[in-house]
Amino acid sequence: MAADRLSRVFGALADPTRRAILNRLTQGEATVAELAAPFRVSQPAISRHLKVLEDAGLISRSRRATARLSHLEAEPLREVTTWLARYQRFWDESHERLDDLLAALQAADEGGHIE
Amino acid sequence: MAADRLSRVFGALADPTRRAILNRLTQGEATVAELAAPFRVSQPAISRHLKVLEDAGLISRSRRATARLSHLEAEPLREVTTWLARYQRFWDESHERLDDLLAALQAADEGGHIE
Repeated sequence: MAADRLSRVFGALADPTRRAILNRLTQGEATVAELAAPFRVSQPAISRHLKVLEDAGLISRSRRATARLSHLEAEPLREVTTWLARYQRFWDESHERLDDLLAALQAADEGGHIE
Repeated sequence: MAADRLSRVFGALADPTRRAILNRLTQGEATVAELAAPFRVSQPAISRHLKVLEDAGLISRSRRATARLSHLEAEPLREVTTWLARYQRFWDESHERLDDLLAALQAADEGGHIE
């Protein structure tokens, strides 16, 4: 993924309303009115959020009669996850250190009871 | 992770310089001067990026003599990956559809050659 595409995807995800819209779209496509319903924001504000999501490739939009439907596009989220995977060994390492500590504490504790 | 923490992490990742700084820190802790070296930006600009990364919990900072060292903190990236995992079935589905299509094409192709 090009650097600017990755920045657009991360930027689109950096807003709780936009993340909630994506979550709603996991249940199926929806109109702007349907997407605006759970929020205390206007339909124009939701439309601006949808534009950001569309520019990031996270949704596609189609027309059905007079309604404009949004549809989740998950591929950029797979690409972001691939980008994050390179850091996995760093959080694994910190978990391993914690596991080692817990194992050492448990061994010491068992030692105190058994021996 | 609280919604605003998640927004801060995604916002911090929405910049190619900040992502490059994180990538550099996978090699070990670094001073501001070391982090600024590969970029055509001033040290104050790098310091502002480091502040954003620190506020998101993606780096920690410590002093050694007069130098201020930045250290990668990968835990928020694990949390972001956990958040992304809920969308996995949506990109898996689109990959499965592609796999089905390829399998069908291959079967048709093999059918043409063998029978």
